[in-house]
Amino acid sequence: MSETKPYRIGIAGLGTVGCGLVTLLRRNADLIAARAGRWIEIGAVCTRNPKKARDADLSGLNWVDDPLSLPDDPTLDAVVELIGGAEGVAKTLAEKTLTAGKSLVTANKAMLAHHGFTLAQIAERRGVGLGFEAAVAGGIPIIKTMKESFAANKINAVYGILNGTCNFILTEMRQTGRDFPDVLKDAQTMGYAEADPSFDIDGIDAAHKLCLLSALAFGVRPDFGSLPVQGIRDVDAADIAFAGELGFRIKLLGMARREGDEIVQSLEPCLVPAGSLIGGVEGVFNAVLVESDAAGQSLSVGRGAGAGPTASSVASDLVDLARERISPVFGIAADRLESARWAAQGALATRFYLRLTIEDRPGVLADVAAILRDHAVSIESVIQRGRDMIRPVPLVLVLHETTGAAMSVAAGKIEKLGTVLGPSRMMRIAPL
Amino acid sequence: MSETKPYRIGIAGLGTVGCGLVTLLRRNADLIAARAGRWIEIGAVCTRNPKKARDADLSGLNWVDDPLSLPDDPTLDAVVELIGGAEGVAKTLAEKTLTAGKSLVTANKAMLAHHGFTLAQIAERRGVGLGFEAAVAGGIPIIKTMKESFAANKINAVYGILNGTCNFILTEMRQTGRDFPDVLKDAQTMGYAEADPSFDIDGIDAAHKLCLLSALAFGVRPDFGSLPVQGIRDVDAADIAFAGELGFRIKLLGMARREGDEIVQSLEPCLVPAGSLIGGVEGVFNAVLVESDAAGQSLSVGRGAGAGPTASSVASDLVDLARERISPVFGIAADRLESARWAAQGALATRFYLRLTIEDRPGVLADVAAILRDHAVSIESVIQRGRDMIRPVPLVLVLHETTGAAMSVAAGKIEKLGTVLGPSRMMRIAPL
Repeated sequence: MSETKPYRIGIAGLGTVGCGLVTLLRRNADLIAARAGRWIEIGAVCTRNPKKARDADLSGLNWVDDPLSLPDDPTLDAVVELIGGAEGVAKTLAEKTLTAGKSLVTANKAMLAHHGFTLAQIAERRGVGLGFEAAVAGGIPIIKTMKESFAANKINAVYGILNGTCNFILTEMRQTGRDFPDVLKDAQTMGYAEADPSFDIDGIDAAHKLCLLSALAFGVRPDFGSLPVQGIRDVDAADIAFAGELGFRIKLLGMARREGDEIVQSLEPCLVPAGSLIGGVEGVFNAVLVESDAAGQSLSVGRGAGAGPTASSVASDLVDLARERISPVFGIAADRLESARWAAQGALATRFYLRLTIEDRPGVLADVAAILRDHAVSIESVIQRGRDMIRPVPLVLVLHETTGAAMSVAAGKIEKLGTVLGPSRMMRIAPL
Repeated sequence: MSETKPYRIGIAGLGTVGCGLVTLLRRNADLIAARAGRWIEIGAVCTRNPKKARDADLSGLNWVDDPLSLPDDPTLDAVVELIGGAEGVAKTLAEKTLTAGKSLVTANKAMLAHHGFTLAQIAERRGVGLGFEAAVAGGIPIIKTMKESFAANKINAVYGILNGTCNFILTEMRQTGRDFPDVLKDAQTMGYAEADPSFDIDGIDAAHKLCLLSALAFGVRPDFGSLPVQGIRDVDAADIAFAGELGFRIKLLGMARREGDEIVQSLEPCLVPAGSLIGGVEGVFNAVLVESDAAGQSLSVGRGAGAGPTASSVASDLVDLARERISPVFGIAADRLESARWAAQGALATRFYLRLTIEDRPGVLADVAAILRDHAVSIESVIQRGRDMIRPVPLVLVLHETTGAAMSVAAGKIEKLGTVLGPSRMMRIAPL
C-alpha cells in the first residue's frame, strides 16, 4: 500500500533553506507523516561545500557528491532543488529529475521565470509534479491559493509586495527618516540584505516572482522579458516623507492586470494608501492581493523569506506529492498556456506622484501646470513648501490618472524648464 | 480516461450560495474545466421552493423533488449540500451521500461543528472527499491553507474575524458613533444582517467556524460545546469610542491557542490594536491569522460571505475532487483526531479593558484600585473624564495581563462598591 511506503526525497543545496528543510522535516516528522499519510524520508543530500559549518543538525544523512546523480537514484521519489540560479546545475538537475520521471520541488524563482514553461511541459509529459510554493513570497501559500483555491475564478489583477529586503528598507527609511544607502548598510549588517544586494534592491527577485504570479493568474507562459523592472535605489527620504504627508506609503509593488485582451504589468516603487491593508504590510513581510471575479479581493500576508517560512512551503509541496495531490504546474495544462499579449510599456494608467526641485520664483507652477495641461494630465493636489530665494525648493504634485507614457513625456519637458533643477522624481500611485 | 469524463454533481439548496454556484459554474465553465482537467456538470438540482423567483439563470437544469434522492443517482459523483442547519435534512443527506460512496461538498458550518467527526469517519471509511472550504470565512481559502499549505507546521494559535455581519456593524458603529440597535437595523435593511440576526450577532456562527479552525489547527475533534461564546449585543458606542482613544478597535474575535498540553479558546468582542493588520480589517471582510512554528505569522483577508465568494470556495472543492486531490477531512486521519484537552473557561490570560460608571466623588479610583490589587490585577492606564457632581461619569481602565477568571471576580466586587453604578463592561485586549 502506497500509504505505508515512505516518500523518499533527495535534497540538492544546503544553504539557509536546505538546512531549514532538514530541520523542519526532522522536528515535525510525526505531524508531517500524519498529514502526508506516510513518512517523508531524506534519502540523500548534496551540497557544494559539505565541510561548511551549518546551523542545523545534519547527522545521519546520506551525503552524495554530485547533485546530478540524484535523479539516477532509484530509491528517490522526488528531488528538492535548492541550488539556485536560472541556469547551470540547477536547470540541468531540474530537467534531469523530471525527465527521469521523478517529481521536483524547487524554490528557484529565477529558473522558473526563465524556463518554467519548458519544465512544466516535461513534468506533464512524464506525469510528475513540479512544486514551487517556496519560490514566491516564502511562507505565503500563494501558489496553491491561486492554482487551487481560486480555480473557479477569472483573476483580474494581482498586486504584490514580493521582496522582504526592499520592504524592510523602505519601512526603516520611513520610520527613521534616513536615506537609502545608510539603511541598506544596516540591512546588510542585520542579514536582511546580501553583500551584493542588487538582485533584491533592483527588483529582479520581485520581478521573477511577479512573472510566476502572472502566469498563474492569467493562464499564460512565464515571460520574464516582458516585465519592466525598476528597483528602490532612487527612492529618496524626501519622497517617503512627502508620500507620508499625502497619506501614502512607498512600497516596491508588483502589479499585473487584465486590460481588455492584454495584460499590463509593472514592478516599481509605488505610493499605496497608508490606511489600506497592503499599505500596512511593513518590514520583512510580503503580501499578495488577488482580485478575482467570484471571490473578490483577497489578501495574503506572511513572511516572505527565511529558513522556516521557505522550508514550510517546500514541505507543503512534498506533502502534496506524498499524498499524490498533483495539479498542473501553472494551474492548467502546459499546452493550454497562452503566449500573453502584454500591453505596451507605458500603457498602464494610474495616478502619479511627481516631485520637482525648483527655483523659488513666481510662475514656476504656472509653467509646470501648462506643460501638464498640454499632455492632458490634470493636477489633483500640490505641495509647495517654504519660501527660499537662495536654495532650490521641492514642488510635489499628485496627478490624476494618466498613462506612464504621457507622464514620461510631460516630465521630460518639465525637466527642461530653466527653473526646474535636476531630474524629477515620478512614481505611480497604485490603484488600490 | 477519467480526464475526459465530466464530473457530475447534484446541488441541494438553491438559496444565495446555490444560485451563486450555478451562475459561477456556468459563467466560468471553460476556465473551470481547464483547471479541473474535465467538465464539471450539474446533473441535478433540488430546492424546497422551486417556484420562488431567483436571481440566477436556472434554465435547462434537471430538477428533482427530494434532496435525499440525490445520493441514489448513479450518474452523480458528488452532492453539494447547501440546505443548512446542523440536523434534519442536511445531516441525513450528508450521511447518505458519504455512505453511498459519493463525495460531499458543503458550506454547513453548524453541521460540521456538531457532527464533523462522525462525517469524517464515514468519508474516510468510504474513501470519498468531504470538502467544506465554504463553511469558514467565505471566499478565504483558510481550510485548504491550514490542511495543506501549513501541513508541515505545528500550529500554535489561530485568531479570526469570522462573521461579516458583526464586523460590518462594529465598523459602522465606530465610523458613525451610533449605537448597536440603530446600526443593526441599518444592516438588516442593507441585507448584511438577517431578519432574525441572533445567529450572527450572538456569535454562534463565528463560533461554529472557530470550532472547525481549532480542529484543523490542533488535530482535534470538532467540539462545539467546548467553546465559550459571547456576541456583540452589549458592545456600547462608548466602548468603541474609548477603545479608539486608547489606540484599539473592537472586533468579534475568535481565538484558539495552545497553552502547554491544553487548548484555550474564546469567541468574544475584543480590543485589537488599531494599527495591527487584523485591526485594519473592516466592514464585511473576514480575516484569519495563523501562528505556526515554521511559517510564522500568516494572515488571510477576504470576503467572508456572499454568493460569489462562497460559491468560489464550493467550486474550489469541486475542482479538487474532479482532479482526485483528496485530503483527510480535518487534515489527518479521523481516527488520529484527539479529544482535545480544553483549558478551563476563564484560564485565558490577556490584558483587559474595564469600563465603569461611577459617581464622581474623590476616592472611587482608590477603592477600585485596591480591589484590583487584592486580586493581583495591575493597572496599565486609566481614563477618568469630566467632573460632574450630578451625573455619573465613566472610568476606563486598561489592565495588565491576567486571567478571565481573576478579572470576573474583581469586576464583581468592584460592581458592589456604592460609588459604582450599574454593571461594568469588561473586554479582553487580544494578544496580537
